[in-house]
Amino acid sequence: MPDFTDNGRVFYNPVEYAMHHIGGTWKMPILWRLEKKTVLRYSELKKYLPHISHKMLSTQLRELEANGFVTRTVYPVVPPKVEYTLTEKGKRVIPVIATIRLYGMELMREANLDPEIIFKKPEP
Amino acid sequence: MPDFTDNGRVFYNPVEYAMHHIGGTWKMPILWRLEKKTVLRYSELKKYLPHISHKMLSTQLRELEANGFVTRTVYPVVPPKVEYTLTEKGKRVIPVIATIRLYGMELMREANLDPEIIFKKPEP
Repeated sequence: MPDFTDNGRVFYNPVEYAMHHIGGTWKMPILWRLEKKTVLRYSELKKYLPHISHKMLSTQLRELEANGFVTRTVYPVVPPKVEYTLTEKGKRVIPVIATIRLYGMELMREANLDPEIIFKKPEP
Repeated sequence: MPDFTDNGRVFYNPVEYAMHHIGGTWKMPILWRLEKKTVLRYSELKKYLPHISHKMLSTQLRELEANGFVTRTVYPVVPPKVEYTLTEKGKRVIPVIATIRLYGMELMREANLDPEIIFKKPEP
């Protein structure tokens, strides 16, 4: 398969290019959460994703902002209030995540894991 | 989001579970190639994916076989002939890859990269 470059990085195919933007452990869960609630403060996102470290969450949010998937709004109040919301580009990725998520649930069923577990714990 | 374990590994959500099986740089390109040609010898796969090292290609194929996505058939001839083909489980992942691939092409267009480049070089 031919390769191409973007910002000096070589990619081998469109799948790899897509995963460079939305792959990794946290980007899709963050975008998915933002789709459910529209606007989220940093502290709310952190509560929804208890396993992520502060350093990782801020890095991921900065990358998502730099790539145009989320908007970060800082309100000049004390203490500072920071809110995140999906951009139009961020909204367009949601059906892709939904497809991967449904497939993940299918794989879980095949491995005798109950996909319903993801709905069972009360949300914070 | 609740977490669950599979073979001693903790997962946070179905998206992460799916990407554990089909993520990384090479698994989806390998599966995609197998869908196009049905049966591929190891050397043909290597030709289609020129950037992958032999070590990486055999590791990825072994993982895909262990997870039930591909079948490996060894023919007792000299020199040994090894062929790979998608299982039923492997075929079910193709629409997921197609979705990610289309989305990657959309992202390429947004970044002023021509997605048609992937069809331009003659295949080996």
